[in-house]
Amino acid sequence: MAAVAAASRRCLLLVLSAAGLGLTGAPPPPNILLLLMDDMGWGDLGVYGEPSRETPNLDRMATEGTLFPSFYAANPLCSPSRAALLTGRLPIRSGFYTTNGHARNAYTPQEIVGGIPDSERLLPALLKGAGYASKIVGKWHLGHRPQFHPLRHGFDEWFGSPNCHFGPYDNRARPNIPVYRDWEMVGRYYEEFPIHLKTGESNLTQIYLQEALGFIRRQQAAHRPFFLYWAVDATHAPVYASRAFLGTSQRGRYGDAVREIDDSVGRILGLLRDLGVAESSFVFFTSDNGAALVSAPKQGGSNGPFLCGKQTTFEGGMREPAIAWWPGHIPAGQVSHQPGSIMDLFTTSLSLAGLQPPSDRAIDGLDLLPAMLQGRLTERPIFYYRGNTLMAVTLGQYKAHFWTWTNSWEEFRQGVDFCPGQNVSGVTTHSQEEHTRLPLIFHLGRDPGERFPLSFASSEYLDALRKITPVVQRHQESLVPGQPQLNVCNQAVMNWAPPGCEKLGKCLTPPESVPEKCSWPH
Amino acid sequence: MAAVAAASRRCLLLVLSAAGLGLTGAPPPPNILLLLMDDMGWGDLGVYGEPSRETPNLDRMATEGTLFPSFYAANPLCSPSRAALLTGRLPIRSGFYTTNGHARNAYTPQEIVGGIPDSERLLPALLKGAGYASKIVGKWHLGHRPQFHPLRHGFDEWFGSPNCHFGPYDNRARPNIPVYRDWEMVGRYYEEFPIHLKTGESNLTQIYLQEALGFIRRQQAAHRPFFLYWAVDATHAPVYASRAFLGTSQRGRYGDAVREIDDSVGRILGLLRDLGVAESSFVFFTSDNGAALVSAPKQGGSNGPFLCGKQTTFEGGMREPAIAWWPGHIPAGQVSHQPGSIMDLFTTSLSLAGLQPPSDRAIDGLDLLPAMLQGRLTERPIFYYRGNTLMAVTLGQYKAHFWTWTNSWEEFRQGVDFCPGQNVSGVTTHSQEEHTRLPLIFHLGRDPGERFPLSFASSEYLDALRKITPVVQRHQESLVPGQPQLNVCNQAVMNWAPPGCEKLGKCLTPPESVPEKCSWPH
Repeated sequence: MAAVAAASRRCLLLVLSAAGLGLTGAPPPPNILLLLMDDMGWGDLGVYGEPSRETPNLDRMATEGTLFPSFYAANPLCSPSRAALLTGRLPIRSGFYTTNGHARNAYTPQEIVGGIPDSERLLPALLKGAGYASKIVGKWHLGHRPQFHPLRHGFDEWFGSPNCHFGPYDNRARPNIPVYRDWEMVGRYYEEFPIHLKTGESNLTQIYLQEALGFIRRQQAAHRPFFLYWAVDATHAPVYASRAFLGTSQRGRYGDAVREIDDSVGRILGLLRDLGVAESSFVFFTSDNGAALVSAPKQGGSNGPFLCGKQTTFEGGMREPAIAWWPGHIPAGQVSHQPGSIMDLFTTSLSLAGLQPPSDRAIDGLDLLPAMLQGRLTERPIFYYRGNTLMAVTLGQYKAHFWTWTNSWEEFRQGVDFCPGQNVSGVTTHSQEEHTRLPLIFHLGRDPGERFPLSFASSEYLDALRKITPVVQRHQESLVPGQPQLNVCNQAVMNWAPPGCEKLGKCLTPPESVPEKCSWPH
Repeated sequence: MAAVAAASRRCLLLVLSAAGLGLTGAPPPPNILLLLMDDMGWGDLGVYGEPSRETPNLDRMATEGTLFPSFYAANPLCSPSRAALLTGRLPIRSGFYTTNGHARNAYTPQEIVGGIPDSERLLPALLKGAGYASKIVGKWHLGHRPQFHPLRHGFDEWFGSPNCHFGPYDNRARPNIPVYRDWEMVGRYYEEFPIHLKTGESNLTQIYLQEALGFIRRQQAAHRPFFLYWAVDATHAPVYASRAFLGTSQRGRYGDAVREIDDSVGRILGLLRDLGVAESSFVFFTSDNGAALVSAPKQGGSNGPFLCGKQTTFEGGMREPAIAWWPGHIPAGQVSHQPGSIMDLFTTSLSLAGLQPPSDRAIDGLDLLPAMLQGRLTERPIFYYRGNTLMAVTLGQYKAHFWTWTNSWEEFRQGVDFCPGQNVSGVTTHSQEEHTRLPLIFHLGRDPGERFPLSFASSEYLDALRKITPVVQRHQESLVPGQPQLNVCNQAVMNWAPPGCEKLGKCLTPPESVPEKCSWPH
């Protein structure tokens, strides 16, 4: 890793000197735009093989940049993956997990008490060290209580919501989720910010687009490098699109949402071009976890040829679409087989800014600049966690499963299916099956769908296991789990009276405070 | 269809006048190259989302031409699909089916007595009317007895084999398959044309490549328009590759075969460019049926997000990769959602040559020139047959299954699985389930994987059924099935003493002639 870091610094110098702007020597670091989708699957873009091919802007972004076919979320669920992006660390380190049950996914509903700990150092705070202005547009999801507010963790601006756009609620048993501008709420979903569940109509993506374009224009006018974290959520159930896009997709309402996002990405890249800052803007597009097949086909996307979806540690749960774009720097039309992780966006962004990641803690993100600028590949493990349990690891082409589980028989019998139409005997299990002594191993090149486990007796199996075992041992021996943040829930902490509610007359009265163990069924 | 044909003629005139060559007015019609793969699946090309992305030449062909995401074989099995390509007719019309059982796939093993009837008019014979020289390179598969020889059905040249490259055989109970040059055999597989089953090494793709390049060069030198049917079979189990490609794919031996074919396609297109005839050469790449998942992962490919594979009438069995290339005529980077069929290559080729399809018989192929040159879409049904049984039909986005079947419980229990890792309850059935009165209907845009049948009670279901029913009725009422060719087998008709065997000293003695009903288990 040291060699890689050194190479990346050299490389950055090359790049910066190639840009060769200014009289003072080094040009300013590039703008950084991270476009994070919600529950979008690997198979949802035309360039990843979606048969309806309705993402011309994203497909073009790929032909102008680098596509990563093997890029991973840090978790099969939203909040932990988002915490990992902004900290560069596995959720097990940052505390974005639960110990309430074995191998349980957890996130931040509005009754959650925890959130991003103050001890974590987030990307926008670090980028301040290089003079970046930063904004988050859309879903934060790292806790909604005051101490977890994104502007307390480095962002300069926020327009969006702390939690998922579930609802509508009655504001008595459960409040509607607030939408914030910076420090204060400016309304609530289903109220000032309508989402029509029946028609699927909502203007939210258009609002989030305008927030992005406005921020870009302002920072450009101020000649300040900026960090934009554009975390839209139209592809998370209940999926929505604005009227101009509703009914336009061959894929139904989910496709309408994808088309609107694709169009918005086209507008964002177009503005960068129009402002003449495309070559000084690094843009990365990816998603927080695999498509939610439990909501398919009307409210969920596609994981292409991969097994299962969101909530699982099969490829469909964690392999993501990923496109890097930086004209004049990243070669056009490149495909990188570098195994990538959402956590790499942390380290790569710091590298772009000429900054070092914090040295006082374990950082899991890799600098992707050598892969993107020089086509170099770095071997590194991909860890698949579910809550506090290391379910699987991929090293090179080999993926070893230490635990297999989709969901419980109880849930499955009620129709909750994370793998509809898929059933790999002994693999997509409905009880938690331990394989720590003899992992199930798949060759992801020959068998990306995880359908054909290697024979335990084969030399290929033994060779793969011999390589994987010490990597996992080192990881587990050195791992210091963070204080789990997703154990305790309390109805009293819900979004009853967010800051700013008084001005709007939208404060609600919280119930009595009763801390409880959160229930995480899968 | 009449309007389409007229439009297509107009369009052809436009195209030809745009090319504007020669003093005599009309330029010569373009060369036609049909590159037909064997058991390659929809998901096997990078441009269709294969994660290893090892087909740079085919991906480039797509960016320079038109990609069809909804293009279909005429049958989930090789021989019938190939008969359909060359006749423009469904196998049920040309006789490429069996009545030995209900809904059974059948093909042309070397004990088959039947083959392509003399009454069928094949594409190469018709193209002679416009002065085309024609060659088939590779697998013929329309019967191996003398009356079925490709040079008796319009081809001027042949280099390849009449049957699959199964073997090695002992030449006593069963002869090895001959390889022909034109009228006579020049050797046998596993003898003069080695395929090493253990290592997977064979030079056959290189030989087939040279045959193609040589033919192109000769016809170009002679200033004759040509038709090349390049029917390679390296991706059919047992898959093979030459030494230079063995071990180079991330996907194992199957991927090695794909890489060698991709490289070969690059060389063919490169030669057309080098000879300055790219703009007067129409090239189409597709496959005969879906990937053979029964041979996966080491000997079978990928059907991407689709259900099941070869032998089945789910999308994985019949949806194919399809790329059209004709620089200067077909727009670069176009995606056409025209539902296409391998039979369209017959009609389209005739249209390119300025010829009409035979008017004395039903032709199922559509002229794709309006789709490719003008972006026009024509509604047309896609019929999915298994033997003599119409299993399913797609019209627009709706696919109705009248029968569902994968294979028998007996076969399945023995490990023969056409849908490994996939199981859609009531859909991937192991008994033949009739749904003719209440078809299962899927929306392929929202649900390309055929996992979520529409509710019978929904208005969407009823509307779809109302559209589909009369189309199927018209088809079935007007259908005149051909004399079934794939019913009778006889050990005596095997390739014991093909023409030319005397010169090589390779004639074998046939056993007594005993005609039998062929056994078609699935």
